[in-house]
Amino acid sequence: MPQVITDIAAMQKTVVGLRRKGKRIAVVPTMGALHEGHLTLIREGKKLADAVITTVFVNPKQFGEGEGFERYPRALEDDARLATAAGSDYVFAPGAGMMYPDGFATVVDVERLSSILEGQSRPGHFRGVATVVTKLFNITTPDVALFGQKDAQQVVVIRRLIRDLNFNIEFVVVPTVREPDGLALSSRNRYLSAEQRAQAPVLYQALLLAEQLIRGGERSCKQIVGAMKAMIRSRSSAIIDYVSIGDADTLDEQYECLPGRSLLISLAARFGTTRLIDNIIVTVR
Amino acid sequence: MPQVITDIAAMQKTVVGLRRKGKRIAVVPTMGALHEGHLTLIREGKKLADAVITTVFVNPKQFGEGEGFERYPRALEDDARLATAAGSDYVFAPGAGMMYPDGFATVVDVERLSSILEGQSRPGHFRGVATVVTKLFNITTPDVALFGQKDAQQVVVIRRLIRDLNFNIEFVVVPTVREPDGLALSSRNRYLSAEQRAQAPVLYQALLLAEQLIRGGERSCKQIVGAMKAMIRSRSSAIIDYVSIGDADTLDEQYECLPGRSLLISLAARFGTTRLIDNIIVTVR
Repeated sequence: MPQVITDIAAMQKTVVGLRRKGKRIAVVPTMGALHEGHLTLIREGKKLADAVITTVFVNPKQFGEGEGFERYPRALEDDARLATAAGSDYVFAPGAGMMYPDGFATVVDVERLSSILEGQSRPGHFRGVATVVTKLFNITTPDVALFGQKDAQQVVVIRRLIRDLNFNIEFVVVPTVREPDGLALSSRNRYLSAEQRAQAPVLYQALLLAEQLIRGGERSCKQIVGAMKAMIRSRSSAIIDYVSIGDADTLDEQYECLPGRSLLISLAARFGTTRLIDNIIVTVR
Repeated sequence: MPQVITDIAAMQKTVVGLRRKGKRIAVVPTMGALHEGHLTLIREGKKLADAVITTVFVNPKQFGEGEGFERYPRALEDDARLATAAGSDYVFAPGAGMMYPDGFATVVDVERLSSILEGQSRPGHFRGVATVVTKLFNITTPDVALFGQKDAQQVVVIRRLIRDLNFNIEFVVVPTVREPDGLALSSRNRYLSAEQRAQAPVLYQALLLAEQLIRGGERSCKQIVGAMKAMIRSRSSAIIDYVSIGDADTLDEQYECLPGRSLLISLAARFGTTRLIDNIIVTVR
């Protein structure tokens, strides 16, 4: 049976012991409901460190009102088994009461980057992410932290957080893992009806369309976003939340696809009550 | 000549080396202009750790408009000499441009505790403190951090910060060091005119009056605060900013001195343009 640690002090004692032996530590922060995307992060972590800690914590502070905190899938036993099989040495799964005890009062906020795109749709989301990631970093004291490109804005926010707060941590971003038809893996995909599931790959198709248009010489972001939205609307019943072309580092919205620039093309859309996100990075030639 | 490190990466490399050798690290965060209060922190740190790092950084983010950031005393050479003589192994003195480079966007905020008392007089002050202390903790990775009771609210805020963000750090608070006439040591005392300096001990006298009244059975905080203010006004030309009796942990303002409770009696007053603070903790019998 895999080793699940639920106590913060026990986890800290474990990492102090690992450090004393000179072991390199990798952390893979997750909300559980592990899929192949998470397992890829764990396998990559194992290549870069002696000990991999997978954290499983459905963080209440990153869910807004009605964003499904209650219904978010929880399957700690399966998660522990999958994580361990992928090479994780420890699964750290604290309770919410231990992470946010009475009197908890501290927030970590990466300003500006947190309030646009996903942050505009989900106020407070990235404040919750930045706060819990800071806590998890302090508890696990990793040499390496691994995150998935799937959550592109989270990647940008946490890269900034690590830099700004001087965490001495190597930040590794792992490419999005996709279903054969292109749909990005997500713990939320299980909520899709058969019909929604059949339509959902349109999100990735729209991203590929953008890449194709840019490669073909289209420079107007407005034109590209318009074509993407039209494709999603014509091939699905999804309600588009946003389609964005921004600078991959600053997230600044772009009007023109300037040569040499790395663009983050990202989108969010709702299939019924299930909100999906996806993105690609395109470097303009 | 004492060893002054001005580069963040160099400091991080040094602490990684110390950790590898199993050394215990203590950090004493200061804004420089070191006096006997700081030196006491360093000496205490030396008792608790193998290596003491004194940080010297006049943090622009904790000064408001017109709060004297520009005129705050800077004397790095003297500081390095004094710190080293007191037992500090390293002096870490980064520049502001290195601590807050272009694009810096992250804030750490201990809510509520930061917005009352000093925080009410100095909006943003404790956000600046919490942010820089988080950075300094991450750069120096201490086992022990030492702070002076002189800055009582800072002590409460940082105790909460350490707990909330799960820093694995022993938090040590060292009693306020005073001049023979009772005036709390402060880098700002040097700004006082001879007359102001002669009057300034009234602040501590007012605190002692409060303790005496409580010991004598007075239970009304309003009465006590009134007596303190009257004393300060009658014996000095100081403008009182606040006089407060709060719970020593939560800082909740108290109306009655309830037996068994630890009270933080704190005050701030201006002598001309120089703002002084002081406090004592009284446990009600």
